[in-house]
Amino acid sequence: MASRFLLLALLVVMTCSIALATESLQDFCVAQPTRLAAVNGVVCKDPNLVEANDFYYSGLDMAGNTSTAFGSRVTSVRVNQIPGLNTFGISIARIDFAAWGVNPPHTHPRAAEILTVLEGSLQVGFVTSNPDNRLITKILQAGDVFVFPEGLVHFQYNVGYTTAVAFSAFSSQNPGTVTLANTVFGSRPHISSDILTKAFLVDKQAIYNIQARF
Amino acid sequence: MASRFLLLALLVVMTCSIALATESLQDFCVAQPTRLAAVNGVVCKDPNLVEANDFYYSGLDMAGNTSTAFGSRVTSVRVNQIPGLNTFGISIARIDFAAWGVNPPHTHPRAAEILTVLEGSLQVGFVTSNPDNRLITKILQAGDVFVFPEGLVHFQYNVGYTTAVAFSAFSSQNPGTVTLANTVFGSRPHISSDILTKAFLVDKQAIYNIQARF
Amino acid sequence: MASRFLLLALLVVMTCSIALATESLQDFCVAQPTRLAAVNGVVCKDPNLVEANDFYYSGLDMAGNTSTAFGSRVTSVRVNQIPGLNTFGISIARIDFAAWGVNPPHTHPRAAEILTVLEGSLQVGFVTSNPDNRLITKILQAGDVFVFPEGLVHFQYNVGYTTAVAFSAFSSQNPGTVTLANTVFGSRPHISSDILTKAFLVDKQAIYNIQARF
Amino acid sequence: MASRFLLLALLVVMTCSIALATESLQDFCVAQPTRLAAVNGVVCKDPNLVEANDFYYSGLDMAGNTSTAFGSRVTSVRVNQIPGLNTFGISIARIDFAAWGVNPPHTHPRAAEILTVLEGSLQVGFVTSNPDNRLITKILQAGDVFVFPEGLVHFQYNVGYTTAVAFSAFSSQNPGTVTLANTVFGSRPHISSDILTKAFLVDKQAIYNIQARF
Amino acid sequence: MASRFLLLALLVVMTCSIALATESLQDFCVAQPTRLAAVNGVVCKDPNLVEANDFYYSGLDMAGNTSTAFGSRVTSVRVNQIPGLNTFGISIARIDFAAWGVNPPHTHPRAAEILTVLEGSLQVGFVTSNPDNRLITKILQAGDVFVFPEGLVHFQYNVGYTTAVAFSAFSSQNPGTVTLANTVFGSRPHISSDILTKAFLVDKQAIYNIQARF
Amino acid sequence: MASRFLLLALLVVMTCSIALATESLQDFCVAQPTRLAAVNGVVCKDPNLVEANDFYYSGLDMAGNTSTAFGSRVTSVRVNQIPGLNTFGISIARIDFAAWGVNPPHTHPRAAEILTVLEGSLQVGFVTSNPDNRLITKILQAGDVFVFPEGLVHFQYNVGYTTAVAFSAFSSQNPGTVTLANTVFGSRPHISSDILTKAFLVDKQAIYNIQARF
Repeated sequence: MASRFLLLALLVVMTCSIALATESLQDFCVAQPTRLAAVNGVVCKDPNLVEANDFYYSGLDMAGNTSTAFGSRVTSVRVNQIPGLNTFGISIARIDFAAWGVNPPHTHPRAAEILTVLEGSLQVGFVTSNPDNRLITKILQAGDVFVFPEGLVHFQYNVGYTTAVAFSAFSSQNPGTVTLANTVFGSRPHISSDILTKAFLVDKQAIYNIQARF
Repeated sequence: MASRFLLLALLVVMTCSIALATESLQDFCVAQPTRLAAVNGVVCKDPNLVEANDFYYSGLDMAGNTSTAFGSRVTSVRVNQIPGLNTFGISIARIDFAAWGVNPPHTHPRAAEILTVLEGSLQVGFVTSNPDNRLITKILQAGDVFVFPEGLVHFQYNVGYTTAVAFSAFSSQNPGTVTLANTVFGSRPHISSDILTKAFLVDKQAIYNIQARF
Repeated sequence: MASRFLLLALLVVMTCSIALATESLQDFCVAQPTRLAAVNGVVCKDPNLVEANDFYYSGLDMAGNTSTAFGSRVTSVRVNQIPGLNTFGISIARIDFAAWGVNPPHTHPRAAEILTVLEGSLQVGFVTSNPDNRLITKILQAGDVFVFPEGLVHFQYNVGYTTAVAFSAFSSQNPGTVTLANTVFGSRPHISSDILTKAFLVDKQAIYNIQARF
Repeated sequence: MASRFLLLALLVVMTCSIALATESLQDFCVAQPTRLAAVNGVVCKDPNLVEANDFYYSGLDMAGNTSTAFGSRVTSVRVNQIPGLNTFGISIARIDFAAWGVNPPHTHPRAAEILTVLEGSLQVGFVTSNPDNRLITKILQAGDVFVFPEGLVHFQYNVGYTTAVAFSAFSSQNPGTVTLANTVFGSRPHISSDILTKAFLVDKQAIYNIQARF
Repeated sequence: MASRFLLLALLVVMTCSIALATESLQDFCVAQPTRLAAVNGVVCKDPNLVEANDFYYSGLDMAGNTSTAFGSRVTSVRVNQIPGLNTFGISIARIDFAAWGVNPPHTHPRAAEILTVLEGSLQVGFVTSNPDNRLITKILQAGDVFVFPEGLVHFQYNVGYTTAVAFSAFSSQNPGTVTLANTVFGSRPHISSDILTKAFLVDKQAIYNIQARF
Repeated sequence: MASRFLLLALLVVMTCSIALATESLQDFCVAQPTRLAAVNGVVCKDPNLVEANDFYYSGLDMAGNTSTAFGSRVTSVRVNQIPGLNTFGISIARIDFAAWGVNPPHTHPRAAEILTVLEGSLQVGFVTSNPDNRLITKILQAGDVFVFPEGLVHFQYNVGYTTAVAFSAFSSQNPGTVTLANTVFGSRPHISSDILTKAFLVDKQAIYNIQARF
């Protein structure tokens, strides 16, 4: 019984090739998803078993559900969604905004981003690092393109009564997202209020009020 | 007189920062275009003079003119169009197709590509390298996404009576495009027909017939 | 007159070598500081003029002044302080903490960090990216070492009545620092309170209260 | 029975180290070939079992058989031939040419190439990317060296009645080769003649004539 | 029996993620040490099992034992000591010196180094590559910082009657150390004295004398 | 007068493009040599002025003069010899050996090496880093290939009464060479004999004897 389980497990491993990082060393290295191993995108499928569907994803024509706290929804197409993206250093996303919805201040720790507006009007912006903390911002219309540098805090805000839609591309197969409010006020466990009161220069009640929302 | 010219030239140089390659070493390094120097995207602008427009481009909502030999038009947004893309390893393009138009077999020597169909139906495909030369192909509808590995020959073909539109993202600020027919049969000067007849295993007349088109 | 200025300017340029990015292409490429050009660390000095002082910095034995809003002080030794660090992908810092001082939640957009405690006790921690936002934290004593992943939010907090001192090393010659409170609530100009109220799920008065501190 | 197979399989896995990509993280990471796993060059051998033969290949003094369609033969020494090349970003090849033989137009999707002529005379050339498609070409004699940029279409042609021999080095452990004629006209399955007639601006019969040769 | 062993082995594998190289593709990839597999730092632990101790090391406040042939001791904190360093391109070390102790001429084949003196006085230096072989040297006091370029020969020498202590950071998770005397005169097996007499331009007895010490 | 000098200087600068590092961002970036600026290989020529000779070098069919202290001669073809190699991460060399000549123990701080023997018999070897310092060695004949890992000490020794010839390729446009004997015993100025006696565990006279040869 255990042997059969093992055999199954080994077959999964045996048909895999161990993959590489951010520079391609062969034509492709399709990620091999498996429930048995906690793989995260860098084991690759036997090239002989690769098929067109490994490079394919569908559904980006569908609006995301924006009934969220922020009035926005990000639909990511990363290596977890398209295994063929593995080792290629790129991924995309569709972002839907309800009227006045916001994609709140966040960073991508491993990627720059280039965004195109498909519908509606967005105020976008990013803030430079210390010591200047300069806000660089612009209002975009359909057909406009904007760039957010790697690792810098940025946001998009739907400045209109209609929905808005944007497409973004990222310079990583797995850019990651650090939403500031969630990270600082909603981490599990919470960051100590002793630290946050000092960091934000407000009293504990103000910190508790924000933490209660996340 | 010469001095004034020099002064002008130097001012251009003096307000520049020399930039880097494919990994960002500061928040951003906005490319500094200039008519005086044959710069190709890696001299950067004084950070204090950078403004939102350096990260901005407009017009991707406009259909490209597809009255071309191939019935398609690629509108590229690379570092030449958005100087703020410099050092960020990413760029995008809009591709318009007339009915039955084709984006003919080509490679990007410095990037992988991820494509999304906005309108219409496209047959897409790429061919693996030697010795297999396997064609991996699929027909895409609106909302579908497909990936083309770095450096491999690929194409898109509008399989319908209506126009089609796609957006692509590339893992380089300047991916380059090598259209095979133009490169092999339309280079300046031409590749010798002695070479091409041996390479394509046909007679010289067949080669001349194709060369005459490019 | 202009010519002399030009001559001076050109001499600066002429004794420089244009430098590279994050991988060394020669033994060293010492950054060439100059007041005439807005260089940011990648123009390099004539190798024949390089001397030991180009690889040297002094003063890390001196405690930084911790009479700041946060009760801490970071003394950075980056490529701006040691021109010889150029192209080497590494830098260091000394961090001083007053009693109960905090190095508030921040990210380094271009580097991972490894920290060693020299004196005192520090609570340190970082938060993983979405969707988990898990806080990984530990209390360190002298001689303890801790690692903060690239781009993730992290902090250090002096949990004691005495001063504390730490040394950190970074995987970039210019890692950058994004202090979250300053970036979100103290950018120039401010991020619109419309956006921040939505992002932090609190009313405008709460936002104004924090913004007033930065 | 299954257990013995499993034990064998696991021993293979257990004596391996999982390897990395294009930058070395240890002295060496010798590729571990195995019939059980579809490895493609990035699993590495236990360092204690590594021996001189892992870094060794023989036979480049032997002329390759040039009785091919093109009158040339490439003998590649890549990571598949020398497991010790793994992670080192380099490989070589010997190229033999019959009289008037050609190494037909092709690209290496993951490497630049530097070629040296050992015997004979070769016309070599490459074509720049769109929109210029400029042919840069030269006739080489023994002792001459020439460089082909990464991803660009290039060729070598023996312009003489005697055999010719060249050595090439590549900036990848696995540069890949895309021979244009084979890829476009000889893929499995074929690219649709609808696409190729549009791409090469000729009629279907001309396309069929070429496809019939591959 | 074999099955239990296999089950154990597989559990180790199953809770691992295969990791990457020098650029992070996720928040972290904690190295998974195991006695069953000869892993060398690039297999990573299930992210759900990661804990603060994976990013932690203690003991750098303890002086290393300098009763060695050279009167110095390097205490390295690399990926083997802190598994959480995996993929982060950085590591550190503490170096202790007895009075007049030396860290003899050596190279780090995969890293640049930045050193800070905590106590005592050190003469440090490095030698540029061929053909100049220029020695760049300086005497450092507490609080001084110095940089050693990647791959160049360098040393530190305690120029005083008291102990000295320094901290170093390296631009690799596993920089490696090649101590020249040990490598040239103490390799196993020895490099032939025929080679060494020619390389050092001395007679065999002089070579034997040095080899006898290593 | 000064103006004419300036005009000349500016013309040099104006026809240059500022280049990049180790990853190509355009088809090519031919290095622009100039006597006015101390450039070291990363300023690039106006692409419109590029010609075939920029990618060309001749003379590798000529034996190098082996009347040297070591009985060997390395003829390097790096970016200084072929400006078109700039940004391509590769270079080559021809190595000639007199009977019993040696290419003495050395490292390349920025490259791995792959060597092919054209004529004669060579003993080659490299030594692994601390703590093992294992010598991996083999005797090669014509047509044999061997690999030397990046940054490790290695050598070649002509084990025969005839001349020998080899070709090597390197994974850098400028790999650098650190010949150990020259570096340690022949640097300018000399490394203090206090340091060398401790490092090599011999008396000062033995050190002086070797230093006198370099």
